Formats: sequence, C-alpha cells, structure tokens
Amino acid sequence: MEQQDKIILIGAGNVAHHLAGALLKAGENLCQIYSRTLDTARQLGMKTGISYTAELNEIYPDGDIYIFCVSDDVLPSIVKTIRVSENALLLHTSGSQPMDVFKSYSKYYGVIYPIQTFSKKRELDFREIPLCVEGNTVSVKERIKELAERLSDKIYEINSAQRKGLHLAAVFANNFPNYLYQVAGKLLENKGLSFAMLRPLIFETAHKVMLLNPEEAQTGPAKRGDESIMNMHKSMLKGDKDLLKIYTILSEGIKEMQNKEETGEQKLSQDIIDMPTLW
Amino acid sequence: MEQQDKIILIGAGNVAHHLAGALLKAGENLCQIYSRTLDTARQLGMKTGISYTAELNEIYPDGDIYIFCVSDDVLPSIVKTIRVSENALLLHTSGSQPMDVFKSYSKYYGVIYPIQTFSKKRELDFREIPLCVEGNTVSVKERIKELAERLSDKIYEINSAQRKGLHLAAVFANNFPNYLYQVAGKLLENKGLSFAMLRPLIFETAHKVMLLNPEEAQTGPAKRGDESIMNMHKSMLKGDKDLLKIYTILSEGIKEMQNKEETGEQKLSQDIIDMPTLW
Repeated sequence: MEQQDKIILIGAGNVAHHLAGALLKAGENLCQIYSRTLDTARQLGMKTGISYTAELNEIYPDGDIYIFCVSDDVLPSIVKTIRVSENALLLHTSGSQPMDVFKSYSKYYGVIYPIQTFSKKRELDFREIPLCVEGNTVSVKERIKELAERLSDKIYEINSAQRKGLHLAAVFANNFPNYLYQVAGKLLENKGLSFAMLRPLIFETAHKVMLLNPEEAQTGPAKRGDESIMNMHKSMLKGDKDLLKIYTILSEGIKEMQNKEETGEQKLSQDIIDMPTLW
Repeated sequence: MEQQDKIILIGAGNVAHHLAGALLKAGENLCQIYSRTLDTARQLGMKTGISYTAELNEIYPDGDIYIFCVSDDVLPSIVKTIRVSENALLLHTSGSQPMDVFKSYSKYYGVIYPIQTFSKKRELDFREIPLCVEGNTVSVKERIKELAERLSDKIYEINSAQRKGLHLAAVFANNFPNYLYQVAGKLLENKGLSFAMLRPLIFETAHKVMLLNPEEAQTGPAKRGDESIMNMHKSMLKGDKDLLKIYTILSEGIKEMQNKEETGEQKLSQDIIDMPTLW
C-alpha cells in the first residue's frame, strides 16, 4: 500500500477547524496542527486527537503537505519562517493571496480555496463546499485536485486573478447580506419586534436564487418603481444618515438593473430553470 | 353546519396567487378573483377553477370577506370604487398601507400581512409564512386571526406603525441582499465564472442566521478589520463608482457594528442558540 501524505495544518481558526474535520472524515493522514495561540491550537488538537503546537520551530519539518489556513496578513511571514523539506507541497486556502506567495519557498505549491463562510459553531457538509484549486504546474494541480476531490464533490480549477474576483463577489454575496440582516434586526428592535419574524423571509430569499436568477427573484418597491413607498421609507430613515444612504444607493441599483432588463440591455443568464407551478 | 364566509380576492398578482392557493388548501370558500388585467385574472381563475373578472362592477357585492392584494398605489382607488355590503369585512395584505385606508368604507376591516417574498414560479409552504394581523376592533381582530390561523402556523398581532417598520426591515432583509446577489453574479461574469459557484455560500449565509444572530454569523475582511484586503477590493472596484460606494459604506457599517460589539455597546439579543459542535 502506498504511504499516505503527512499533512500539517497551519492555523486553527474557522477554516482550519472545518478543514481538519473534512481531512479526518476522508481518512487523510493529518499529523499536526499549529496555531500562534496555544489555546486555539489545543482546542482543535483536543477535538481532533491530533498533536498540536504553538511553536513555529516545533512544526514537523518532514511533512508532505502543509496547508496554511491563516489570515492573509500573517501568511507571508509564517511561510518565510517555517522549515519544510524541499519536496513539500505548500497550499493555502485564502481567497485573496496569490499562489506565488510560496514561490521562493518550494518547488510545489498551490491553493485550495473553499467558497464558504465558516464559523466554529456551525456544522457543514464539506462535500457540498465548492473548492477552487490552483497549482504551480500541471502535475501539482492534478495532485491538489485529487486531494480536493477526496474532500468535496464540487471542484473548480481557477487562476489567481479569478480567485480574487470570486473572493470580492463572495463579500457581496455573504458579508454584505449578513450585515443587512443585522440592520433589519435593528429596525425591528426599534419597533419592539423580534428578528425571528424575518427568518422565513431570509430563508426564502436565499432559496429562491438556488434555482432562479436574482433578477428573476427580485420583488419590492424599487423593482416596482414605487416612489411613494420609497419616499416613505427614506423619511423613516431620516434619523440615521448611514442607513438612509444604504437604502438610497441600493434602491437606485435595483431600479437601474430593472431598467436594463426592460430595455434588454441586461442579458439573462442561461441557467434559468422553470419552477413547477403552485398546484 | 355554519355557512362559510364568501371570500372575494381583489388582485391576481404574486401575493394573490399564493393566497388563493392557501385559501383553497384550507377549504375556504373562495368565490371570485378580480384583476384589472383580464389575462392575469383569467390565469389565476383557470388555475384555481374560481370565477374571475376584470370588471370592477362585476365584483360580487354580497361577499363576506374582501381581501385586497393589489399594489399600494391603486389600493385606495379600488377600495373607493367597489360596492360591498355594509357588513363585509375588508382586508388588505400590504406592508405599508395603514389599516385605516378602509375606515370610510366599512365597519369591519383589518390587515393580513404576509412577511414573505412571492413569485408565481416559486412554490411555498404557506403554513410557514408569518402572517401579521390587525383589526379595527378586538372582535374583528379575533375573526381575522381565526382566518389567518387556518392558513398559517405563524401568526403575529402587530399595529400599523409596527407593520411599516417591519416592511422596511423586510426590504433590508430581502430586496437588498437579492440585489447584492445580482452584483456578485455580475462580478463573477466579469471573470468568466458562473453564479452557481456562489450558491452554496448564499444558502449557508441565510441558514446560519436561522439559529445564530447575524452579528455572530459575520465573517470577512471588514469584520476582521483587514484594511489591506479592503483596499485591494476597493481598487478592483475603481471602474464602477456605484459598486465602490456600496462596498465602502457596507464595509464601514460592518466595522462599526464590530466596534460596538467589542466595546459591549451593542447588546446581543437573547435568542442565541448554541449550535452542536462539529464532531
């Protein structure tokens, strides 16, 4: 039997937490977990039963694959500091860092970028998470792809420039909507109402675009061009300049998209699936 | 056996479409559907097997309950025009119109406002949709509540001012996130990538706040205060002033929420539920 690659995980945050679980579930040979913070390292180490350290010079130098799940600002300095064998494969999981961050440190390197939002508290099916892979040579990419395929069913090959754009898009699709949920919760609180009232709406808003395109799914006053409702909403937000600005600029955006659609400027994408009718 | 109320549905748009289905499923006595547009009236009439009309003067004057599912700008004029018996109960389903729009036209009136986004193409379980009820007297409210309870399991009693705030919050929780999905899709298209890549992320973003609060669910560069990533994103958006503005103001909003939380200013709501751990 072929010997399994020794995998070292650098980082013990949200991504590392989920990736460690996925690696173990896939039967990979995860050997060690490093985190700058001993507590965090210990937490994930204890949970997985994998040995852990908070000392850079204790990281095993004979690993076959090092996966860096650390924040973008510390990645370069950690890569520079740790000692690895010259044949080690170096990977990171960042949406924004170019693959070439590893260039001076190994012959074999690449990226596995998961398009997902991770929190330690939240369980996820890793096989459903899209993984974007990139490698510095064709054969390295194949090797990374094989690893990725043991973890997930959704593998995309993209380059560093595409990944950067994807990461930006992910901010618009995840961080910003989540912030708007927070704003909505605040508006409800002001009226003595509970965030729970909006949960079915939020759920459906996301579910709708699992099959429809967002342009088809859009409803509401800006889409209908209902100026009197929009003016009423703006006057309700008079006391909060920032929210008023957000309301105005996003409503304008919706109106513009709508106009483009009506004039046929905005082409609809091809993956529209006709939904079954109601009864 | 008590005779069932004769229900007339005024409107045949997205809301009427779903409400008609829910009424029939609940065994209610839906008698007639009106729409200004004959095609739309016919469509819903044929689908439900209920008689339909596009003529205001053909609306049955002997209905017990008239439910107005029309856009806010035409509601007052339709209410003014149609003839109904003096004991009829008049209801609308609008998030923004005050209940008193009916005041001069009946002794019995109120509101059933569904907190949901409706599209004809999209099937929904109406029993899961929160319905906000309001009535001009206690007994009228009870009567509306009983009807609402035959349609849904989630009934809230709120007043017109609360409903207005709720509707504004719904715009932030639904229309705006959906618009941001559209923007994300556009950003991907620019890189030759497909919107489908973001679907699991969008799905998880919504699912996360079904149990967590949005402040707990937040991730990303603004939350981490990662200025170098944010600056990179802003430079990527240089060519599109509107998107740059949206990126900047929403990132600022996230940073502010984060600061408030760290200084303890922002109190966390009580309905945090601890999620099961990963393994």
